[in-house]
Amino acid sequence: MRMVDIIAQKRNGDKLTEEEIQFFIENYMSDKIPDYQVASLMMAIYFQGMDEEETANLTKYMVQSGDEIDLSKVQGHKVDKHSTGGVGDKMTFIVGPLVAAAGIPVAKMSGRGLGHTGGTIDKLESIPGFDVELSNEQFIKNVNKYKLAVVGQTGNLAPADKKLYALRDVTATVNSIPLIASSIMSKKIASGADSIVLDVKTGSGAFMKSLEDSKKLAKEMVKIGKELNRNTIAVISDMNQPLGYEIGNANEVKEAIEVLQGKNIEDLRELGIELAAHMTVLGGVYSTYAEATERLEQLIQNGKAFEAFRNFIKAQNGDVSVIDDVSKLPTSKFHIEVLATTSGYVHAMDAEAIGTAAMHLGAGRATKDDKINHGVGITLHKKIGDYVAMDEPLVTLHADTESLNQVIDIIRKAFTINEKKVDKNKMIYDVIK
Amino acid sequence: MRMVDIIAQKRNGDKLTEEEIQFFIENYMSDKIPDYQVASLMMAIYFQGMDEEETANLTKYMVQSGDEIDLSKVQGHKVDKHSTGGVGDKMTFIVGPLVAAAGIPVAKMSGRGLGHTGGTIDKLESIPGFDVELSNEQFIKNVNKYKLAVVGQTGNLAPADKKLYALRDVTATVNSIPLIASSIMSKKIASGADSIVLDVKTGSGAFMKSLEDSKKLAKEMVKIGKELNRNTIAVISDMNQPLGYEIGNANEVKEAIEVLQGKNIEDLRELGIELAAHMTVLGGVYSTYAEATERLEQLIQNGKAFEAFRNFIKAQNGDVSVIDDVSKLPTSKFHIEVLATTSGYVHAMDAEAIGTAAMHLGAGRATKDDKINHGVGITLHKKIGDYVAMDEPLVTLHADTESLNQVIDIIRKAFTINEKKVDKNKMIYDVIK
Repeated sequence: MRMVDIIAQKRNGDKLTEEEIQFFIENYMSDKIPDYQVASLMMAIYFQGMDEEETANLTKYMVQSGDEIDLSKVQGHKVDKHSTGGVGDKMTFIVGPLVAAAGIPVAKMSGRGLGHTGGTIDKLESIPGFDVELSNEQFIKNVNKYKLAVVGQTGNLAPADKKLYALRDVTATVNSIPLIASSIMSKKIASGADSIVLDVKTGSGAFMKSLEDSKKLAKEMVKIGKELNRNTIAVISDMNQPLGYEIGNANEVKEAIEVLQGKNIEDLRELGIELAAHMTVLGGVYSTYAEATERLEQLIQNGKAFEAFRNFIKAQNGDVSVIDDVSKLPTSKFHIEVLATTSGYVHAMDAEAIGTAAMHLGAGRATKDDKINHGVGITLHKKIGDYVAMDEPLVTLHADTESLNQVIDIIRKAFTINEKKVDKNKMIYDVIK
Repeated sequence: MRMVDIIAQKRNGDKLTEEEIQFFIENYMSDKIPDYQVASLMMAIYFQGMDEEETANLTKYMVQSGDEIDLSKVQGHKVDKHSTGGVGDKMTFIVGPLVAAAGIPVAKMSGRGLGHTGGTIDKLESIPGFDVELSNEQFIKNVNKYKLAVVGQTGNLAPADKKLYALRDVTATVNSIPLIASSIMSKKIASGADSIVLDVKTGSGAFMKSLEDSKKLAKEMVKIGKELNRNTIAVISDMNQPLGYEIGNANEVKEAIEVLQGKNIEDLRELGIELAAHMTVLGGVYSTYAEATERLEQLIQNGKAFEAFRNFIKAQNGDVSVIDDVSKLPTSKFHIEVLATTSGYVHAMDAEAIGTAAMHLGAGRATKDDKINHGVGITLHKKIGDYVAMDEPLVTLHADTESLNQVIDIIRKAFTINEKKVDKNKMIYDVIK
């Protein structure tokens, strides 16, 4: 078998066999196939695509290139949730406790943030004392006892994906749906869950800006999951504006706690129940979606969901006094309102720009080595469909500096305000099973 | 400027500017751009193509990446001929002396052969004593005195083409017409001629198997030539069967001498006059194509073309006694006829397979380090349109071994014989100016 023939085959639009995909991944990982041949293959895939079977095979051999997390000692049906990334996305802190309270074990490995979307691990670290590095034994023990544990990614998960992604990043071959789908799924599958619920974002703050592309990506990922024996469901959810009203680290934790305590922040609650419902049905604790949503609402009302969150934080040495009194969470020196310069209805928001503004305040990383400032962030006062009067605040910036001209400028440009009345955004566009 | 943006631009089907092409070639040659980014760009070009201006700019910067031969001391308008490669192609030995006899200076750099097509330099070396390495001074002197000199390629011509070709060869990106066109033209332009006549082969023994692709390639090369101020004409000629009746080294030289001495070997004579006519008109020694063909015929009849060949060989220390008596040229130990196993008309020949058979006999190189055997080769007895009776010889193999089963098998499979009468092949399909 020769790599040049594999490239030519894909270039001509022919299907790659499982053996060819295995040959390419294994020899690339052992440095027997050079980057330049793989770069050429990636560009050929960009143009010719890959079918369901090829994509599943690529995912399979990327998983096999590294460690696979062994969750066999966790009792019950493990269901993982994965978001393709968005601004203000604190869903793990809502969904995790909800499904844990329902009895679904959630053994979650999460990453740190880069660019305009924050990382779950960064956000959790705004709780003093919270420990994101547990021994494997402690991790399993916590999941069995509290049904929820979240740790930083450890182990050598899907190193072939890491190597391929680094190459794609510098060869203009990132934007290929089968390559994105197999990249995401390889890491999820290596993480050891039995079933997977994907939260595929669509809109101005998402990696996929169009609904059509988001659906394509969701369908490919669901197919990969099924081919590789993981029950997989994808929810297509809105990312044309940040989720909830808080963007940052400590303030996102605070907002998630409010939801768990019963506050009706519509989009967070709707998406949280939606994702948790699919997870609990997949995990077999409820038999129908309708039953699940009803029971999950109860778990919020009766405080069980919040209790699960509190137990999880405590088990990982987090200071629960800040959970009980969120005013103790880190905050910033200055709180500056950005006022509307016109009146009307909010028609659109550039969610990615707002994420970038939060990053400039220090809530996210522009480069890998940047330090996170847990207290800074942005509170939205208006969302799509809301009326705003001239000089009414659009957002409050939580900042440690008063030199905010650049950020204020980004915020103002991110809002599209128009006299015509407009409906609120839809939260859930589709569910792909 | 970043290479990843250049790749993305071409991937999206957008045009590359001259500055971008210059940036890519110059930085690739100074190892500041890695192979993997170039491989990805080559595949993007494979899919998205390049327009006339992009192709000319790529050629220009490939030329500028190395030496350009200075032929300013050669008197007159220098016209070069280039063949895209075929089997039995001894046209340089016919066309070179013809145009030299007409007064056109031909300062030719030629290569050695690899694979199923032989090299001009290899063929010339079948003449005892012939020296393919002249000093630059001697080369110019010979061209001025005898109007014809042929040397092996020296100098660092278009090293960017060499580096790109080596990469394309292992990344399945050879078969792109703009890349092939710029590759050929960069070497021709660096060789210093004022005008260029291209002999673009089409058919079973050619790199381009279809007439459509051959025309596309020819058009692109003519455009590049014009963009870079070289008058360029392309003749599309038949390569569905070998040229003439001889394939090898010494036997091809012999056959060319026969044509120069007036023997009417139709295809060789027709193509020779055609190419020489365009060269002499471009070079300004004749004013019309009709005048040129008439005068060139005379130069064969009156012995001037043969005299030019003899002078050229003598000037490069070749033993002219073998020119005067071709039976003195190297030959092989065995001469074995391959007989037809059926009767009928020759409908098709796999010219590439016949070239490969000659290579197996030792007339060509399978790998770069193979040694050429100048005496071996193949004589065809039948060509397309000819009738062959059962047990009549199809070809004679000139070999130094009698174990020829593999070669005989290739030859038999290369002939398609059929009862239905069929016309002879057309020699010239088109002329692109």
